[in-house]
Parts: sequence; C-alpha cells; structure tokens
Amino acid sequence: MTESDFARRSAEINDLLCVLNLLAWDARTQMPPGGSVTRGEQSATVSALARERTLDPAFERAAQAALDTPDAPAARQALSAISALRRVPEALTRELATLKSEAQDAWVGAKAASDFAAFAPALTRMVALSRQLADALGYEEHPYDALLNLYEPGLTNRTLQPLFARLREHHVALLERIQARPAPRTDFLRRSYPAAAQKAVSLRAAERFGYDLSRGRLDESAHPFEISFTRNDVRITTRVQEGFLSGALFGTLHETGHALYEQGVDPALTRTLLASDLVGLYAVGGASYGTHESQSRLWENRIGRSRAYWEGHFAELQAAFPEQLSDVDAETFHRAVNEVRSSLIRVEADELTYDLHIMLRVELERALIGGELEVRNLPAAWNARLKADLGLDVPDDARGVLQDIHWSSGMFGSFPTYTIGNVMASQFYEAAGAALPELEAQLERGEYAPLRGWLTDNIYRHGRTFTPDELLVRVTGRPLDPQPYLDYLTGKYSALYGLTPQETPA
Amino acid sequence: MTESDFARRSAEINDLLCVLNLLAWDARTQMPPGGSVTRGEQSATVSALARERTLDPAFERAAQAALDTPDAPAARQALSAISALRRVPEALTRELATLKSEAQDAWVGAKAASDFAAFAPALTRMVALSRQLADALGYEEHPYDALLNLYEPGLTNRTLQPLFARLREHHVALLERIQARPAPRTDFLRRSYPAAAQKAVSLRAAERFGYDLSRGRLDESAHPFEISFTRNDVRITTRVQEGFLSGALFGTLHETGHALYEQGVDPALTRTLLASDLVGLYAVGGASYGTHESQSRLWENRIGRSRAYWEGHFAELQAAFPEQLSDVDAETFHRAVNEVRSSLIRVEADELTYDLHIMLRVELERALIGGELEVRNLPAAWNARLKADLGLDVPDDARGVLQDIHWSSGMFGSFPTYTIGNVMASQFYEAAGAALPELEAQLERGEYAPLRGWLTDNIYRHGRTFTPDELLVRVTGRPLDPQPYLDYLTGKYSALYGLTPQETPA
Repeated sequence: MTESDFARRSAEINDLLCVLNLLAWDARTQMPPGGSVTRGEQSATVSALARERTLDPAFERAAQAALDTPDAPAARQALSAISALRRVPEALTRELATLKSEAQDAWVGAKAASDFAAFAPALTRMVALSRQLADALGYEEHPYDALLNLYEPGLTNRTLQPLFARLREHHVALLERIQARPAPRTDFLRRSYPAAAQKAVSLRAAERFGYDLSRGRLDESAHPFEISFTRNDVRITTRVQEGFLSGALFGTLHETGHALYEQGVDPALTRTLLASDLVGLYAVGGASYGTHESQSRLWENRIGRSRAYWEGHFAELQAAFPEQLSDVDAETFHRAVNEVRSSLIRVEADELTYDLHIMLRVELERALIGGELEVRNLPAAWNARLKADLGLDVPDDARGVLQDIHWSSGMFGSFPTYTIGNVMASQFYEAAGAALPELEAQLERGEYAPLRGWLTDNIYRHGRTFTPDELLVRVTGRPLDPQPYLDYLTGKYSALYGLTPQETPA
Repeated sequence: MTESDFARRSAEINDLLCVLNLLAWDARTQMPPGGSVTRGEQSATVSALARERTLDPAFERAAQAALDTPDAPAARQALSAISALRRVPEALTRELATLKSEAQDAWVGAKAASDFAAFAPALTRMVALSRQLADALGYEEHPYDALLNLYEPGLTNRTLQPLFARLREHHVALLERIQARPAPRTDFLRRSYPAAAQKAVSLRAAERFGYDLSRGRLDESAHPFEISFTRNDVRITTRVQEGFLSGALFGTLHETGHALYEQGVDPALTRTLLASDLVGLYAVGGASYGTHESQSRLWENRIGRSRAYWEGHFAELQAAFPEQLSDVDAETFHRAVNEVRSSLIRVEADELTYDLHIMLRVELERALIGGELEVRNLPAAWNARLKADLGLDVPDDARGVLQDIHWSSGMFGSFPTYTIGNVMASQFYEAAGAALPELEAQLERGEYAPLRGWLTDNIYRHGRTFTPDELLVRVTGRPLDPQPYLDYLTGKYSALYGLTPQETPA
C-alpha cells in the first residue's frame, strides 16, 4: 500500500510542529540570551509554514478523501481545525502574536516593579483581542466557551460553573477544618540539598515510574515543563533550588506524568494528526490539556505523595541526604509533603488550595472575556476573592494578580484544565483500581508497571483519537464527575490531619 | 522603506536553514538515541521546504528584480544557486540522501570490523552518484571541479594540482629533516586531566580570544564542530578525554576560530543569503569551507600553538593542573604541543603531517571521481601513499582508508579545503601583520582584540559577499599563494627542532 496523500501531508505538518517544539525547548533550556530575537523569527517562519500547509486546499481535499478510510478520525480533526483556522482572520493571528510578545515584556516589567498599572494597557488589549478571537471561533452561549475549547475540546462554561461551585464549597469547608488542626513538621524540607544530588534522585524516581531515558532527558529550566518531538523524544525539565527539597522532586514527578503519556502514544500515531494540535500549532499526543494534567497529577500526587510511596522509598532518599534527613522518618516526611497551608502563590500551593487558586483565576478571566469585569478592577477583585477563599491579604501585585504568565500570553481558557485534570485523575485512578484488583498491593511493593500499563492501554496509546469526554466515558463509564476526587481529598486529609467523620464535609 | 519581496523570501529561507542547523546540533549534542529516525524525517521535511522555497519561480523573479538594487550580491548568489539546484534532478537528490544514510551505516559497521569490503558496495554507489552529480552540475575540465565548487567556489583541479605538488615536496623534505632530530618530551600530555577542569580551561581560552558567550555556548560531542543559527547564536563543541590534555584544549581553540568568524558577520547580513549556503542547505556566514578553516587554523595554530601564547598563559594552565604539570615549564609545553610525528590518523596529526594526510585523500578521491581508480583498489592505493609520504605501514583498514566519515557522506571535494585553509591562514596573517605593526607585541601581551578586530573588519563582517578568491585578493593583494605558509612552517620548525639553514628546504 502506498502512503496516502493525506498521510504524507499530515506527516509533513507534524514534522513542522515537532520542529516548533524543539525551537521552544532549545530557547528555554539551551539557547544563549543573544539568540532570542532571531529565534522568534525562526519560530514565526515555521509557524506560518505549518499554518499554510494546513490551510492548503489540497490538504483539505486529501482530508475529505480520507473520511472513508481508516484515517477518518484524523481526517475529521483536520477538517475541524481547518474550519477553525479559516474563521480566524490572518490579521488577528498576526496581531495576537505581536501583542503576545509585547504583553509578556510588559508583564515581566510590571511584575518586577509590582505595578499592575504598567501591565494594564497590554492586558486590556489582550482581553479585547481574545474576545475577538472568541467571536471569530464562534460559540453558543458564552464567549469563554470558544477559548475553553482551544484547551479542552467540548468543555463549556455551563459544565464548568456547577462543577467548580461544588468543588469550591467542598474545598473551603475542608480547608477550614484542616486549619483548625496542628500543622505538621516541615522544617527539614528547607535545609541545604546539593543540586546535583537532587537532580539524580529526581531522575531515579522518574525512571522508577517508567520514564524511558532512551527516548527522553531531564534538564533544568526556570519553569518546569514537558515537551515532545514525537513519542521517540520526550523531554522534561525541573527547577532545582538548593534550599528546598520538594520543588525539584515533585516537579520532576509531575513532568514525568506528562512524559509517560507522550511516551505511551501508539507508535502507529507517530507523524499523524492524532499526535498534533493543529489549532495550537503544537506537537502533542495527549487528548487535551486537562487529560494531560490528569496524568501529571496522578503520578505526582496520587502516587508520588502517597503513604505507600514514602514507606517504600524514603530510605533511598535518606541515603542520598543522610545528614539533612537524619532526624526524619517516612511518616514524618509523608506528612510534610502533604501539608495544607493557605498561600499567596499558586505554584507553591498544596493539592487542596491549588484548586482554589485556579477557580479564582477562572472566575476572573471568564468575567474579563464576558465583559463583566474591567481590567482596572482586576486587582481588587483578585484580592477580595483570595481573602474570601484563603483568608489571606495580598501584600502587592507581584504576589497577587501579576504572579502568572498566562494572561500576558493570551491563554484565557487554559486555567480550568489544571483542576479538570485533578478531577479526571481521580476518575481514572478509580477505574484503574477497579480493573487491577492488586493495584494497591503492587504500589506498596513499588511496582508501577501494572498501573502504567493500564494507563497506556486505556489512555496513552490512543493519542488524540478521542475527545476528553469520549475518553472519560470509554475508560470510566461516565463524563466529568467530581465525586471520586472529593472522596480522595476528604479521605486523604482526614487521615493526615486526624479529622473525625463529623468534621468531614459531605 | 518597506521590506522587498526578495528580502522577505530570503529571510524565510535563511530561517529554514538555521532551523536545519539547530536540528543537527541537537541531534549531535542533546537528542536521546530513540529520536534519531524521526529527527531524520523532520530534517528531510525542512530541507525539502527550503529547496522548494528556493526553487519557487516567484523567488527567482524577486532575485532578478533585486539585481538593480543594493541586494545585487545576494541576488546573484540566489540566481546561481537556483541554476545549480535546477540542474540536479530531484531523483538524484533523493537517491543521494537515501544512500548517504545507508552508506554511513555501512561505514560505521565496516570501520568497527576493520573490513573495507563491507563498505565497498556503498562507496561504489556513492562514487557513481557523486559523478552523476558532477555531470549534472557541470564543469569545464575535470568532474572533480564541479564537486570542489560546492565547498570552495571557484577552486579547480588546475589550481590545486601544482599548489599541492609544491606543498607535498616541501612537507616531505621538511618532515625528513625533522625526523632526524631528537623528539621533544610529551609524556605529561597524557597524564590524568579531570574533564570539568579541561572544559573550564578551554572555555576561558575561547573567551580570551573574544568568543562571546552571550551569543554562544560550549558542549561536548564525539566529533567537535561549530554551527550557527545566525550570528546571534554560534555554538561550539569539544571532545574531552581525561587521559589527553591537548585534544579538548586545541580542539576548542580550533572551533573558536570558526565561531569568531560567524559571530563577526555584519548584523546587517542576518537573515540574508549572504549568511546562507543555498546549495548546501546550510546557514553559514563564512565565504567558503577553506576561508572558514583559515580562521580555525589561524586561531588554533598561529596563535594557540605559538611560543608567545604559552609564555603568556602557561602559568594559568599550570595553576589549573598543578600536580600534572609540576615538572613542566612554558618552553617544554610549547615544544610538546608542536611535536611533529608521522601517524596513521588524520585528526591526531600535527600541522605538518596533517597536510600530507589531506593531499593523500584529495589525490585518491579525485581519481575515484575521474574514473582512474576503482573502489576495490582504494585500500592498496591508500596504504602505498601513506608509506611513501609518512613512512608508515597501515596495520588495518580501520586505521587506514576507513578512518574518515567524509566519503560515506558523499563529501568528495571537501578535503582540499583543510589545506587550502592553512594556506589562506598564512596569507591573512601576513596581511594582518603588515596592517598592524604592533601585532607581535600585542600578542605577547595577550591582547587578541586588535587581531580579531582586523579580521572582523577585513574578513568576518563581509559574510559571503565575496568569493574566496575575491576576498583573498581584497585582503592580501594576491590569489591563493602558498609561500607565506611554507615560510611559516619552515621558520617555526627550524626554530623548534634546531634545523640549520642548510637543512631547510628552499
């Protein structure tokens, strides 16, 4: 059988997306500072070519011809992406790209000076352009839906609102009960841990979960991330702080979860559109941002922060840092890395308050896009919500509304996927437990291959064949359902903090 | 003034060549082994796009329109490259690309087994296809000229033959006289030198010559190289062997010379065809392979192996390796790193015997392409010539005819540029000395900025504006002329080995 025109053209487009990913990885981990302007131009050229190839009428014809072949799922995605890209005027795409780089510069400066006013003009334009983007893409009920759909196909505000309302109520009540209990000991996490040893320990843990270094590598970067250029080359980064042990360790486990997903995509999907996000111009095998995050959270939190994990592996960590951990045991360590504490900064938050940080951002960005909140009122709205949910006063914009890069990049609609990922992770984990009766015993023995195998068979190998909802129903029998996640959090923190059943929210 | 169509299209093509260079750099320094097949496909896709954009009739029209503008030099190069690429049938380009990867695999296996017969079939096909390439490109006198022209525009066999005959006669005679003298002490070069310290010392030396790390970086690789993605990002690699000091040190100085050339290209040439090799599909600012090599040789040998350099910097090296170099002084070190010794392996050869290795290869490859030598007779021809020139018996093919990768890559015509680079280096250095009366005194004081500045003004900044011959005439007043190089070698080795004037060949 000769390769079809559709397959050949898809492979070329996927190659270009992989090249874009490599240009980004290199810029963030290897590139000398002087290279940044010309690198931006190189990325813009490859982006334009990928877009041009996708919008080539011959590609559309090839996709239509493939609708009656086994390539139908990829062909449908191609046609849907072509339609979306056609709806967005090229001038808007260009304006957004230019503004993104300007707005990021403004954000960096504003954050350094902790001065929201210096970022407000760029953000105001970004909100306006993003609203234009939403209008161009089209939506039925709320403009936010059009943006959500870029990250989590099929997710709408109508689904999100009640789901998040339920999570918020639960989390706030549980947090209140936890804060009435004594805090665990955590002093030892902030002793001095040499960087090289931290990196070695983190990499060993990644390999234990099944990260294949013949198709991967670990580097350092200011903001940890995972990125891939086909399943054959899936790279992760971590941020090592000598004065804080958990950052690199759990950061690496988080990115390892992303990497296991990408390394587990079926080889048959390599260089196809089922490993390509044509609208986002991103080579990726995961079904959506939320699905991807479900795997990083699952491996980082459900496994990496579990009691069983530290009972099994604390001795090894202690052997790597004998002086720093001489007065600590597995149980104490496990409690420390699961401490719940209200904090100002999202990326430093524990599992429970993390969702509250996310839901705050989601509510504000939806109001910005919906036109119900003006940019100039954003800091006050942020600070009020943080006080209501976490009981904290925000001392300055840098530690408040300016802390995240997302809005300066125009990534409105991406924040919900972090919490959606948590919800999905518990659904998937519950399904894995039902399918693998020995799962808990295996995890207690440090055997991760059965869980990884089940996740690969049921999720990873499919790449982007299914929408997140299709995948959830296929694997768990139900669409998005927060109950397993709520049960997990309640159970976990009740045990850790000795909450009585009466104290536990329903 | 709005950007011209020619400038815009040229920038896009240069971006693609820079991307190709990054794909290659990453593959050779960072990529996990599993990524190699898909990386090859990614590179093939970008290569095809760069070729497609270059051969786009609209680009040819834009180049023609630019012939009356200040872009004329770039436009002429574009038209010349388009014409060359059009002459080569696409089927031949594809066959060569496929064969290159097969032949390299065959070469790796044959070299490991030291079995030329296992490589002969692939090499026979490579010679045949390269001859077809030469015929397609066209030539006046000898098919080898067409291939030479890919690396050294304007160079012909007619120029090369008498030049190399003169060098060979001189080198063989000088080598004979040197070998009659006592060998210098070199034992200390093979003590144990920790890798990290070698790398640090090498990088410090690179910076001393003016390598700008805000636009560069040093990595390790099996075969050292320099590669750039515009003048803003120029990277070098080195190979560190703990048991051998000179490898990493002089290898780094060599690549630094290449890097200074690329970093010194006029910023106005960034993203133009005057920093692009359209036929070789390679982003490069240097005028030719030979011109480039002239700079690596100049900084490595003329400066880095000079007496003045070691008088100035040996103390620093000794401070980095106090135990290993406790019984060595600057003079002894300088003699050791300039030892002349017949050896089997090109990349381990000294300045003098290096050229003999090159000329051997050039004579054999020209005979292969000319049809005067059959592949099956190649090992015997190699061994006979090595015996005649260097007095050595070749013990096996791995240390003989199989030692270099070039022929398996179809790079017939590139070997002469190494020796051409040596010749040019002496011409340029002589011109620099005439223009900078204080040059020797500056170098004795460790001041490299004046020399680098002169080279930048006279050579580097021009990028590919001039052909190598135009550049030579412009800078030195003469075309290729071996006399300064012969004078340099004779003078240098007479002093080092205490040769009397009578012993010195004319």
